[in-house]
Amino acid sequence: MAPPPSQVVSPFVSLILRVVTLICLLVSLILLITANGTASLPDYGHEKVKFKDVQAFKYMCAAIVIGIVYTLLQTTFTVIQISSGSRFGGETFVYVDFYGDKIISYILITGAAASFGVTQDMKDLVDLLGITGFANTVNAAAALCTLGFLFTAILSVFSSMALPKKA
Amino acid sequence: MAPPPSQVVSPFVSLILRVVTLICLLVSLILLITANGTASLPDYGHEKVKFKDVQAFKYMCAAIVIGIVYTLLQTTFTVIQISSGSRFGGETFVYVDFYGDKIISYILITGAAASFGVTQDMKDLVDLLGITGFANTVNAAAALCTLGFLFTAILSVFSSMALPKKA
Repeated sequence: MAPPPSQVVSPFVSLILRVVTLICLLVSLILLITANGTASLPDYGHEKVKFKDVQAFKYMCAAIVIGIVYTLLQTTFTVIQISSGSRFGGETFVYVDFYGDKIISYILITGAAASFGVTQDMKDLVDLLGITGFANTVNAAAALCTLGFLFTAILSVFSSMALPKKA
Repeated sequence: MAPPPSQVVSPFVSLILRVVTLICLLVSLILLITANGTASLPDYGHEKVKFKDVQAFKYMCAAIVIGIVYTLLQTTFTVIQISSGSRFGGETFVYVDFYGDKIISYILITGAAASFGVTQDMKDLVDLLGITGFANTVNAAAALCTLGFLFTAILSVFSSMALPKKA
C-alpha cells in the first residue's frame, strides 16, 4: 500500500495516461486544422470556412497546442524517470506537476466548452449554410479535447495526492 | 508554520473566500436571469430575447446554480466549524472538499467559457439584431462566474494541500 515518495501511482500509469492524452490532443488538433466546408447562401454565393473563421475554435486550437506542449514535456520527464529511476527536477517537481496538471486541465476544458457552446447554438445557422460536416468535425475535435482534459484531470488528482509526501 | 490537521489555511480565510464566491455567483445569476433585449430585423419584426433562448447561457445558469448550492453548503459547514471548533463530517470531509472544489471549479469555468464563446462569435449578429445591451449583461454574468471559478480554484489548491495530513 505504501507508494514511493512523491508519487501515488507508478510512473508507468502516469506514462500511459500522458501518452493517451497526447494521442487525443494530436488527433483533435489534426481534425480541427483540417476541418473545412463551403458555406452557401442564395444571393451571397459561396465562401470557404475554416476553424480560423470562428474565435472559439481558434481559442480551442491554442488550448490544444498548449496541452500538447505540456503533455509532451511531462511524457519526456516520465520516460527519463522510468529509465533513470529518479524524477527529473527532484522533489520540487511535485509542485510543477500539481499546478501544471491543474492549470492545463482548466485550459483544455475551456477550449472544448467554448467550441461546444458555439456549435450547439449555431446549429440552425450551420445547417442553413450547409456546413454541417465542418461543424461535426469541429465537434469531434472538441470531444477529443474533452477526453484529453479528462485524462489530465485524473493526473491532476494523482499529482494533488502526491503533494503530502513533500510537506 | 505548522498548519492545524486537515487544513492549510485558517477556516476564517476559507469562509471569506466562500462568501466572496457566493456573492459573485449570486450577482451573476441575477444578471443572467434578468438580462433581456428586443431583437429587431427588417421584414421579421421584433422578438424578446432572454437567456433561455441560448443553450450556452442556459448551461451557464445551471453551472451557477450548482456552484451556489455547493458554496452555500460549504459556507454553512465552515461557520459550524468556526463556532464549534470541529469540522463537520470529520476527517473524511477533506476528500469531499478536495473533489467538490475540483469538480465545481470545472463546472463553473465551462459555463463561463461556453457563454463567452457564443457572445464573442455572435458579436456581429448581436449588433445587427440590436441586442448589444443584452449580450453585455450576459458577458458581465460570465465574468462574475469566472471570478467565482477563480476563488473556487484557489480553495481547490488549499483543499489539495490539506490532503496530505489525511494520508
